[in-house]
Amino acid sequence: MKHVEHIGIAVRSLEEANSRYERLLGQKAYKTEEVESEGVRTAFYQMGETKIELLESTRADGPIAKFIENRGEGIHHIAYAVDDIRAEMQRLSQEGFRLLNQEPKPGADNKIVCFLHPKDAGGVLVELCQERPVR
Amino acid sequence: MKHVEHIGIAVRSLEEANSRYERLLGQKAYKTEEVESEGVRTAFYQMGETKIELLESTRADGPIAKFIENRGEGIHHIAYAVDDIRAEMQRLSQEGFRLLNQEPKPGADNKIVCFLHPKDAGGVLVELCQERPVR
Repeated sequence: MKHVEHIGIAVRSLEEANSRYERLLGQKAYKTEEVESEGVRTAFYQMGETKIELLESTRADGPIAKFIENRGEGIHHIAYAVDDIRAEMQRLSQEGFRLLNQEPKPGADNKIVCFLHPKDAGGVLVELCQERPVR
Repeated sequence: MKHVEHIGIAVRSLEEANSRYERLLGQKAYKTEEVESEGVRTAFYQMGETKIELLESTRADGPIAKFIENRGEGIHHIAYAVDDIRAEMQRLSQEGFRLLNQEPKPGADNKIVCFLHPKDAGGVLVELCQERPVR
């Protein structure tokens, strides 16, 4: 676990949220990306070494749509950068943290990721993310 | 607005959350501090340039107790570091963001802070924080 790689924020409308965040952070999103496997469209802002990732659902039954239905807009997850995701998954599993995926899976922004159960981290959905290795 | 100075996480028990976060982040909290004016006891972890701040309420009617009552444990706010808090407050107010305090107030970790209305930032309580000037 190194630094906070990004903070994911669930929003109803990426367009509206971008308009607010551009004014809040005083910059434009440097990238917009759709991750079809996760049913999300995302926009990224760079704040020091941490990115703010706005997430809009592309499906009515997607995880972000369900999150907003249950809790409203707001912070969805915290992602920590790791050098070796498999080693961290093994370490945290041994420490009693429940992994939500047993194999690293593709995430936005050229990452491979693993999520941990929110109940094990004070109600916070935690993501581990590693730069995708060059093949 | 510079980097993400800290992420505040509301927890029921600081002792229990510290035990989890020590294992999650692979380090011990570097500081525990009570902010009597806010009714919180806090523990800080350093992850790169961003701190993870765990917040436990010291009062049954405090803001963290109310947050947990309404939403359960979880992320309470994102704090951005600023160089000149009054200038940022003025800029954001002009951009249509509602300030929750009109004057900077003392925060934990030797800061002066101002909160913005969550409705203006995608459901996220935003804190501006500046190092407290030396007198």
